[in-house]
Amino acid sequence: MCCGGRCCVSMTQCFFDYSTSKVLVIRSKSVGTLNRFCQAVVLAYIIGYVCVLKKGYQDTDTVISSVTTKVKGIALTNTSDLGLRIWDVADYVIPPQEENSFFVLTNLNITPNQTQTRCAENPGPGSTCTSGRDCKRGFHDSRQNGVQTGRCIQFSVTEKTCEVLAWCPLEKGNDPPERNILPHVNSSYLSQCVFNRTTDPDCPIFRLGDIASEAGEDFQTMAVHGGVMGVQILWDCNLDMPESWCMPTYTFRRLDNKDPDNNVAPGYNIRFAKYYKNGGKESRNLVKGYGIRFEIMVFGKAGKFNIVPTLLNIGAGLALLGLVCRAFWILKLYD
Amino acid sequence: MCCGGRCCVSMTQCFFDYSTSKVLVIRSKSVGTLNRFCQAVVLAYIIGYVCVLKKGYQDTDTVISSVTTKVKGIALTNTSDLGLRIWDVADYVIPPQEENSFFVLTNLNITPNQTQTRCAENPGPGSTCTSGRDCKRGFHDSRQNGVQTGRCIQFSVTEKTCEVLAWCPLEKGNDPPERNILPHVNSSYLSQCVFNRTTDPDCPIFRLGDIASEAGEDFQTMAVHGGVMGVQILWDCNLDMPESWCMPTYTFRRLDNKDPDNNVAPGYNIRFAKYYKNGGKESRNLVKGYGIRFEIMVFGKAGKFNIVPTLLNIGAGLALLGLVCRAFWILKLYD
Amino acid sequence: MCCGGRCCVSMTQCFFDYSTSKVLVIRSKSVGTLNRFCQAVVLAYIIGYVCVLKKGYQDTDTVISSVTTKVKGIALTNTSDLGLRIWDVADYVIPPQEENSFFVLTNLNITPNQTQTRCAENPGPGSTCTSGRDCKRGFHDSRQNGVQTGRCIQFSVTEKTCEVLAWCPLEKGNDPPERNILPHVNSSYLSQCVFNRTTDPDCPIFRLGDIASEAGEDFQTMAVHGGVMGVQILWDCNLDMPESWCMPTYTFRRLDNKDPDNNVAPGYNIRFAKYYKNGGKESRNLVKGYGIRFEIMVFGKAGKFNIVPTLLNIGAGLALLGLVCRAFWILKLYD
Repeated sequence: MCCGGRCCVSMTQCFFDYSTSKVLVIRSKSVGTLNRFCQAVVLAYIIGYVCVLKKGYQDTDTVISSVTTKVKGIALTNTSDLGLRIWDVADYVIPPQEENSFFVLTNLNITPNQTQTRCAENPGPGSTCTSGRDCKRGFHDSRQNGVQTGRCIQFSVTEKTCEVLAWCPLEKGNDPPERNILPHVNSSYLSQCVFNRTTDPDCPIFRLGDIASEAGEDFQTMAVHGGVMGVQILWDCNLDMPESWCMPTYTFRRLDNKDPDNNVAPGYNIRFAKYYKNGGKESRNLVKGYGIRFEIMVFGKAGKFNIVPTLLNIGAGLALLGLVCRAFWILKLYD
Repeated sequence: MCCGGRCCVSMTQCFFDYSTSKVLVIRSKSVGTLNRFCQAVVLAYIIGYVCVLKKGYQDTDTVISSVTTKVKGIALTNTSDLGLRIWDVADYVIPPQEENSFFVLTNLNITPNQTQTRCAENPGPGSTCTSGRDCKRGFHDSRQNGVQTGRCIQFSVTEKTCEVLAWCPLEKGNDPPERNILPHVNSSYLSQCVFNRTTDPDCPIFRLGDIASEAGEDFQTMAVHGGVMGVQILWDCNLDMPESWCMPTYTFRRLDNKDPDNNVAPGYNIRFAKYYKNGGKESRNLVKGYGIRFEIMVFGKAGKFNIVPTLLNIGAGLALLGLVCRAFWILKLYD
Repeated sequence: MCCGGRCCVSMTQCFFDYSTSKVLVIRSKSVGTLNRFCQAVVLAYIIGYVCVLKKGYQDTDTVISSVTTKVKGIALTNTSDLGLRIWDVADYVIPPQEENSFFVLTNLNITPNQTQTRCAENPGPGSTCTSGRDCKRGFHDSRQNGVQTGRCIQFSVTEKTCEVLAWCPLEKGNDPPERNILPHVNSSYLSQCVFNRTTDPDCPIFRLGDIASEAGEDFQTMAVHGGVMGVQILWDCNLDMPESWCMPTYTFRRLDNKDPDNNVAPGYNIRFAKYYKNGGKESRNLVKGYGIRFEIMVFGKAGKFNIVPTLLNIGAGLALLGLVCRAFWILKLYD
């Protein structure tokens, strides 16, 4: 790049030398056209693709977010075990708050008035017995609900099972009841906008039923076994534009596996208990609550003009595609 | 790049050819000075900006973090509905733990001893009535607290409203009481450091009041309606330096919208209930709890020397700026 | 790059000019060998390191994730304060669900039947007294559990302390009991796979004890004081390959500081209370629960072929290393 061998003669003189390549100019319409075409492709790639489409002139950063949510609405159920019952936010949102997420109880298996005592284990391998010899004091299998006492007692008129120390009576059955609950939970008393993909895509107030339909799911069906629903908030901002153009877009998708063949535990449920004390004796109501867990996921990026990525992209593009063009011409010229 | 047309004569000979551009050396003080100046600018950009300021020689990665928090302190309140009452951590942190976040109850509307029964709806459009004909059995509007039974009963001496099946008595009013509570929650019994922007910027123990003041907010004012406070922990680490230099910095900002004109629901509150059972009858205390939600957000990046981005940045910089200098000289020489 | 000074004569003619550098071909085995060697190094760097190892031809994106967890199993404890007691999921997972995280209670200090009343403060500086003059009505120090009433009463037969208004009786002691609990919590009733580093590295079902051992910790020891365990799920996906190759890998590490010299609060614990009401009088059981908090951290990246980073890396590589080779030859030729 500098002066070379005679540099030693005079550093000062050499310092001010400027060397440039000798060039050969070829005057040919066909060669020239191809040359310009090649240069046009290079420019189109750099300007059109790298700069405009991929915004290669911007430095990008990801999103740091914090989301708060609020659920509104009541529901009425009428079941044999609970009777007529009103459900409000304090009843069906468990726990009362979470970060970036909330859980709405939509179905339940309740086991009321459990106390720590002894009762017959649910029948099954390891618990069905004919006499005390089949039961082992202190034995515990995690398929069972308690620790065996060593006695064999009547579970029903026809069946005998090992007695266990557990929260009794035990929770029964596995199938969530097919109920038609929460018809109103998706109504909102807000006088403001409600999200609608077509008419109101920027509104941050959602009807739960709309979230499910947007994801191609049926709310009533999903409510029976529960599920996990993702609320994806995408911020894709160009900070070279006015800040008010930087708006989130909302999409929804079901996150849990609903393929019944490939899934040991379909749906989503949690077990929790309410504890009571009556005259010093503790009891609890155990609830296996089925519900929809809404996970709010914020992602995206924001880009702003920055000289480093601009020069990086343009420089690398020119260098490479200059080489490509030159190589192409060398092949062409020697044809 | 290789030998060209005569390549076909002898591949072996051609393989060892080395081709270099013929160069023209110009001895001119003015041209040389400009040439060196241009090269100095290139070097300054690559070394000063890309390498030193932007650390273009480093490969960066983002932060994966896990945060645990602990809240300490007690508070004393004396109100007409609750009497003299002590609040400790188990009372005012709800739920007892969350990931990257905690909620401190600072104010509340309590509705004690609710049971599922019938009572007069709060007056409003759709609930004020003069006779049973104004009320529709089974009707439910989500602005209301329950499902109408079809009867019209006295709400107060002067007003009649529709009877509803609900958790009765209903929650009243909307304005949080102006209280002066939690004066001590921001005191810490830790004998160690307490965060202070000037004297102790690295200490991870914060007084809640200090967090609010750092964000330019008044804790007492914020406590009345609640709010969301972001605790931003920034790790900006240069792993080419000793590991002990990699320290987080803490900043605080209020995240909820406190502009009263542009906000339908100022502050932050949650509703939760404590359930009791007396002689088989379930009742609950409903709490509308106002409080400050602290969200801990960890972000940042760590960079370490890596040959790929180094060469990428230097290569692209040289290529582009070489071109710029050359273009500049071509224009200059033909002046 | 274009035609230069005579451009003004004829724009059209000039437009089709093609200029290329005049080159000098050197036929020398030693120079040729070095030239090819240098080019081989360049190619090896670009192809081997940038493309194959660093996958420089891919555009990468990070992971957006949502994790749900389920804990199974029961435990039996026999302690003096609680008697024989069964613990199931609803008892030992607090709160019943969290996002990306769950807490398993493994040890506890229970303070049953607390009510809001007056009792003697635990002895210590600021609470030990000889007469009412040592106690200040309304005084509150956050090392203490309540607000002083101004009276000095018997704490034990030998000690007198200031009376406080607090949740009484006060919580006592600080050392978690050394218990041998939860022996079965790590058993799983699932008939499917269980994670094993060697035989089953892709299974998402973990025994809690295995998680601890993988992190080099002993579950029983960790259970006494509690701790925080990170479950790191790494997705490192090459989307140019079949999608089924995109599998997470699991690693575990302890996140809390277990160095006893450098830690004011070893382990992990939370305080929570269960509230009861008997004949209108509220009481609570305060629990200082020690346990293991499992934090699930998902990270990683996915890469897919994209023309922009490919050209960027190849272009910059060629440009830089072309320069390096040329510089090397210039030095060589003038030797």
